[in-house]
Amino acid sequence: MEVRTVLVEPKTEENIGAVARVLKNFGFHELYMVKPPCIGTKAMAVASHARDLLKSARIVDTVEEAVEKTTIVAGTTARRGISGRKHLRLHALTPYELKTKVKDRNGVLALLFGREDTGLQNEELKRCDLVVTIPAVEEYPVMNLSHAVAIIIYELRDVESSRRDTVKLASVEDKERLFTHIQAFLDEIGYKPHKKEETMLMLRRVFGRAELTAGEVRTMRGILRKAEWKLSDLKTILLQKSAKV
Amino acid sequence: MEVRTVLVEPKTEENIGAVARVLKNFGFHELYMVKPPCIGTKAMAVASHARDLLKSARIVDTVEEAVEKTTIVAGTTARRGISGRKHLRLHALTPYELKTKVKDRNGVLALLFGREDTGLQNEELKRCDLVVTIPAVEEYPVMNLSHAVAIIIYELRDVESSRRDTVKLASVEDKERLFTHIQAFLDEIGYKPHKKEETMLMLRRVFGRAELTAGEVRTMRGILRKAEWKLSDLKTILLQKSAKV
Repeated sequence: MEVRTVLVEPKTEENIGAVARVLKNFGFHELYMVKPPCIGTKAMAVASHARDLLKSARIVDTVEEAVEKTTIVAGTTARRGISGRKHLRLHALTPYELKTKVKDRNGVLALLFGREDTGLQNEELKRCDLVVTIPAVEEYPVMNLSHAVAIIIYELRDVESSRRDTVKLASVEDKERLFTHIQAFLDEIGYKPHKKEETMLMLRRVFGRAELTAGEVRTMRGILRKAEWKLSDLKTILLQKSAKV
Repeated sequence: MEVRTVLVEPKTEENIGAVARVLKNFGFHELYMVKPPCIGTKAMAVASHARDLLKSARIVDTVEEAVEKTTIVAGTTARRGISGRKHLRLHALTPYELKTKVKDRNGVLALLFGREDTGLQNEELKRCDLVVTIPAVEEYPVMNLSHAVAIIIYELRDVESSRRDTVKLASVEDKERLFTHIQAFLDEIGYKPHKKEETMLMLRRVFGRAELTAGEVRTMRGILRKAEWKLSDLKTILLQKSAKV
């Protein structure tokens, strides 16, 4: 499994440089940044011998662009899921559990790290397949950005070189098409609007933990299509009947 | 096991502040610094909510003072033991192996981190019971100081709260007395001077891995004393004999 580190709107050059350095320390190369500040001499100085990695980092405008062509999207958060919005952060994995989950997989893991002050926004976390939390103390769980990257990257250090299995995991694009499909289907079946958001989030988490393969996504979308056709057939018949009456 | 983090001649305030923060993130409190720079507003800003920990850090002049009243001294290095001085860095533990070794022990573990540019000096490493290396890539193994602390502290996060066994490990002072005793004994038995240094280092490593208890140190020193008395008796007899002749 390849690892793509994505910094979402990082604020300080020092953190960006420090992240580049630790990625190189553990042999990772792919760094994406969503709307970073201007990267100047400070970042380069802190990056030390990882300037090359910093120079080749991809700068994009949205999280969606940053996770293009990845297979699993994991978001990081310092806050554990104790809110009423239970599906948002429930089942947060430790870095070790993340490693256990992704090793021996193929494809690309996108690791999302949020802003230094406010982290990832709820909308960004919702979009993730998995949520990861570093087991810090409750009294002060908010870590320095580059430290959080260092610890997770340290745990994942062997993931890129581990054995690859033959199962082809679904791409992010595949899965998004599935979720859009499900959402449309929920509308079609008259699912209660106020419950929809929560349910979609739960499905994202369930499928995220399940690590869907491309084939499984195809099969599920096939089921949805089949159901849609049936609905459509029935509607047509109904229309014909009412026209007859 | 309690953990005391010791920064040996750290150079930048940012690193010091970042170390204080990550210690607090994982619930550790004891920070010692050997000859740090002046700790000002920069360090305090980076420490964020760990300013209290930074303010209560102990500043000392020597490594010896920093490891007073500890039980095990572990030194960190980015360079693995491939030099001819084989005992110096041989058997370097990974952070995970260190955790496995010290959990369920009692006493205080001193974790020594060297200077940002040159690390710990050979003399400082020799003085350690254990040597720890973070498994980074060979191409660029030298990590940012606060990242190295973050990763090792992350691995050790449960060590302070883990079950304590009833064995009382030897203190640093106990062990130093043992090594001084052995060294004197080697001199007394006419051990070849050019071999002595290497042998002492090997013994330090062996006893470091063995995690001597206070009782074991007492017993070993008892053996040495017994041998010394025997030597002394024989010398006395010899002197008496030669006086008679």
